[in-house]
Amino acid sequence: MRYAVIGTGIVGRTLAGRLDELGHQVVVGTRDPAATLARTEPDVYGNPPFAEWAATRPGVGLAAFADAAAAADAVVNASAGASSLAALDAAGADHLAGKLLIDVANPLDFSAGMPPVLDPVNTDSLGEQIQRAFPRARVVKALNTMNCSVMADPTLVPGPHTVFLCGDDEIAKKETAALLASFGWPPEAMMDLGDISNARGTEQLLPLWIRVWGRLGHWRFNFHVQQAGSDPVAGT
Amino acid sequence: MRYAVIGTGIVGRTLAGRLDELGHQVVVGTRDPAATLARTEPDVYGNPPFAEWAATRPGVGLAAFADAAAAADAVVNASAGASSLAALDAAGADHLAGKLLIDVANPLDFSAGMPPVLDPVNTDSLGEQIQRAFPRARVVKALNTMNCSVMADPTLVPGPHTVFLCGDDEIAKKETAALLASFGWPPEAMMDLGDISNARGTEQLLPLWIRVWGRLGHWRFNFHVQQAGSDPVAGT
Repeated sequence: MRYAVIGTGIVGRTLAGRLDELGHQVVVGTRDPAATLARTEPDVYGNPPFAEWAATRPGVGLAAFADAAAAADAVVNASAGASSLAALDAAGADHLAGKLLIDVANPLDFSAGMPPVLDPVNTDSLGEQIQRAFPRARVVKALNTMNCSVMADPTLVPGPHTVFLCGDDEIAKKETAALLASFGWPPEAMMDLGDISNARGTEQLLPLWIRVWGRLGHWRFNFHVQQAGSDPVAGT
Repeated sequence: MRYAVIGTGIVGRTLAGRLDELGHQVVVGTRDPAATLARTEPDVYGNPPFAEWAATRPGVGLAAFADAAAAADAVVNASAGASSLAALDAAGADHLAGKLLIDVANPLDFSAGMPPVLDPVNTDSLGEQIQRAFPRARVVKALNTMNCSVMADPTLVPGPHTVFLCGDDEIAKKETAALLASFGWPPEAMMDLGDISNARGTEQLLPLWIRVWGRLGHWRFNFHVQQAGSDPVAGT
């Protein structure tokens, strides 16, 4: 498969690297490839400049949003939530039409400091905004409830833990589930919540995720839906 | 201990019943005890009228909010979130002063139908509203992220699962933890997130809880924070 990964930050890099490892053709989309490659400073999170990372992943391409999306069979939105709609707009509705668009972003608003809040929240979600803005894309909200390293390699957290999916297109969700399986997610870990409006539920897990992260002091955790009738170690 | 349980619905009944079982003196608070006892119809959720339940729990009293709170050492807010502030106001700030006030409610707004949304949300929480409105109460937000039967008896969900606590008073959190332990919660299941503002995180789990409940078709589940370095079956 040919994947466009929208976003050059740690989430985009981690998922692009994993897709590359799995033998896919991967192009990371950015606003201005030359500017992205010219950066020599770590980003605000202390991650090395993109070019330094890219040198470790010679199989992964870098292109303008529109070029990356045009050449792809499927698109992963790994941009910061606050700029996702602009990035996808730059990718181009025609280049997203008919394609699986996996949205792993969260609409975190850091404008009032830490912890961030959500915008939109409660009566809308980023997943829905994206599906409304690009009605011909087949949007699946998934993986947004955990650290990006766990998204790409669920074995980093031992024992059973859950990945939520939602979206309006059943085939798109099956395609996403197959991709998740290739990442190492067992079928029993995947919970399909229904249509894209359920992104309101998974995005609103982020305020708790951030607080648990603060409490534990590390990101090697995930939420698990523990239920009666299930084997408590299922999914290991 | 003498407990006042604010709220005559299924959450209040379940927690009052459990406290009674454990040997505490329990009085359920309501606006108008005579009116509560006079009801002969099931409530909107199909639960039997209060008097029918009360007949099975002769040890549990019923009193006006203020009388229940005045006589109590500690108070549990198990009222519907939308009416919690009014109910606690009727209980009386003086009757809450200095007391542990465990808030298990969620500010669910059903005015636009199902699924409900949260009000407040994101930049405020019911837990904080209660602490601000009753600054002399020692508010602990806890247990609000699961069905009330699971609150009172965590063994209904097998395997490890998590109960979050937060609040500004460290002693109040210790008292709450001791009560949770008496309900059957193991120490490793309890996660203290910090001050009462963390109620924003736990209350925002409700939109996901509701969707998981819809997906599973039953309430015998809870969220577990699965993490690296922990025994995946710890807490059983």
